[in-house]
Formats: sequence, C-alpha cells, structure tokens
Amino acid sequence: MIILGLDPGLATTGWGLIRAEGNRLSHLANGRLKTDSAAPLARRLTHLDTMLSALVFDHTPDAAAVEEVFVNANPQSTLKLGQARGVVICAVARGGIDVGEYAARLVKKAVVGTGAAEKAQVHAMVARLLPGVKIDGPDAADALAVAICHAHHLASARSLAGR
Amino acid sequence: MIILGLDPGLATTGWGLIRAEGNRLSHLANGRLKTDSAAPLARRLTHLDTMLSALVFDHTPDAAAVEEVFVNANPQSTLKLGQARGVVICAVARGGIDVGEYAARLVKKAVVGTGAAEKAQVHAMVARLLPGVKIDGPDAADALAVAICHAHHLASARSLAGR
Repeated sequence: MIILGLDPGLATTGWGLIRAEGNRLSHLANGRLKTDSAAPLARRLTHLDTMLSALVFDHTPDAAAVEEVFVNANPQSTLKLGQARGVVICAVARGGIDVGEYAARLVKKAVVGTGAAEKAQVHAMVARLLPGVKIDGPDAADALAVAICHAHHLASARSLAGR
Repeated sequence: MIILGLDPGLATTGWGLIRAEGNRLSHLANGRLKTDSAAPLARRLTHLDTMLSALVFDHTPDAAAVEEVFVNANPQSTLKLGQARGVVICAVARGGIDVGEYAARLVKKAVVGTGAAEKAQVHAMVARLLPGVKIDGPDAADALAVAICHAHHLASARSLAGR
C-alpha cells in the first residue's frame, strides 16, 4: 500500500510517499512543490493543482493524508493557507483517493510516541523510521510524518477489523 | 463577451453569468452551488470542483472574477472559506480563464456608484442593470455584482487602449 502525506502551503507544499506492508514501512520519494510568489493567485493555484495531479498520476498512491491545520493568528495567512490546502486536497481526492486528516498531536504521537514532541524530534524519528531516506527540507519531513501516522492508523483499523 | 462572477463559499458558492457587448450588459444565468455540510471536506471540495468545471464547460465564459475576501474574525471560518475559494479559482483558471479579483468597495462602486453602498442597494441595482433577471438568492446576487464590476473594468481597459 502506497501512502501520500502532504503538508500544504501556497509558497511550498511538502509531500512524501511511503510504502506500508503490514507494519513495515519504507520510503519511496519526497519533495516540495513551490509556486512563484510573484505570479497571480490563480496561476499559483493551478500550478499546485497540476503538479499534485502529476504526482498522483505518477505514483498512484492508495491513500493520502494531511495534518489538520494550525490556524495562524494572521487571517491573511490563514486565507492563503486555506486556498492552497483546498486545491491540494481536491487535486488528490479528484484522483479517487481518500484524504485522511490528523491533528498535529496525533502525528507526533504516531511518529515519536508523545503528542508533545518537538519538530526536530519528529524529523529525526522520520529519518529513523524510513532507513535511507534523504528528506527534502522541513515541509517534506512533515509530509512524511503524516504519511507514517496514516499508515499506523490504517494498520490499527485493519487489525481491529481482524484482517 | 461572457463574464462569470463568483462568490465562493464552502457551504454555498454563488455564480452569475452575464454577456457584455460594448457597454450593454445582459443576464445569462445565475445560481448557487451547495455542498453537503455532513460530507467529508475532500468530498465537498471535489463536488465544488466538479460543478464549477461543468459550469465553465457548459457556458464557456471568456473571463471570470471574484470579490477579494472579507477576512472573517473567526480563523476556522477563514480557513473554510479559503479552501473553497482556492478550489473555485483553480477550477475556473484550469479552463484557461483569467480570474480577476476586486475589493468589495470597487464592486459596490461599479454597481451602485458608491463604495459605501448597502448590500440591499447592490442587489436592487443588479436587478435593474440586468433586466428580466431572477436572482437565486444573495450569493448569486453578489456573484452577478462582481461580474458587472469586471465588465466595467474590461470596458474601461479597452477604451483606454483605444479599442
């Protein structure tokens, strides 16, 4: 099962793909999609949409997940983030892929074992859980973390269902 | 020239289509797209995306416009609005259509003649400027208002360019 984790943002969207076989996880790919801050909003959004659609087409993930949003104190930033997040979720869901959402605490708990973990601890654990991974910056690390969280969640759901 | 005005929202997106021939405006169609508040976010966004894409496909507008956003005091509402707005702008722009953005004051000025107009005045003027129109609620009225604003803007730009 291939799982796509996403950390949406208008300037930079982090993404990470992992393979989950039972409880075994392995890294497939990760990176970040950037949009040109000098371009009009509509072009930035369609660029994000096109790149995400290509990613889904190329890697055919079985499931996807994003972190629930930390709502920024700055409403203009929240609006920007929302616009990018809407496009990212929609581009993936349009490919017929369910998009799970996880609170930041749950992601940290799944990766580090405690919901109060620091960002640096999360990133270090992502690197340990996915041997050989070369992480393309903090946004990609966050995306891989949410993919790992989703993999754990799906594995628990399967085990509860007795499969 | 066919102009699509949009008033994006996660629960309800208003839309309005007008035809502009020189300074003459006429109404083509208007309505609202609704999403099911009980459905998961991803499904609401793809539903919005599908309906918008169909609207663009059916009516082949030459241009589109949205109002710049009144940033809500409630960050959760701003995030929701942003997600819907991102998907709406992206769905239209993906069809190769430029999406103009206008401040609320400019829309009011274009329709009523003053940036300080009340919502009810704007709606009454939309009905007067588009004879025979039957408006499908306040979101569709706002969408028609921004379409009218865009028509004026494009006409001024053409006249400045001496065409």
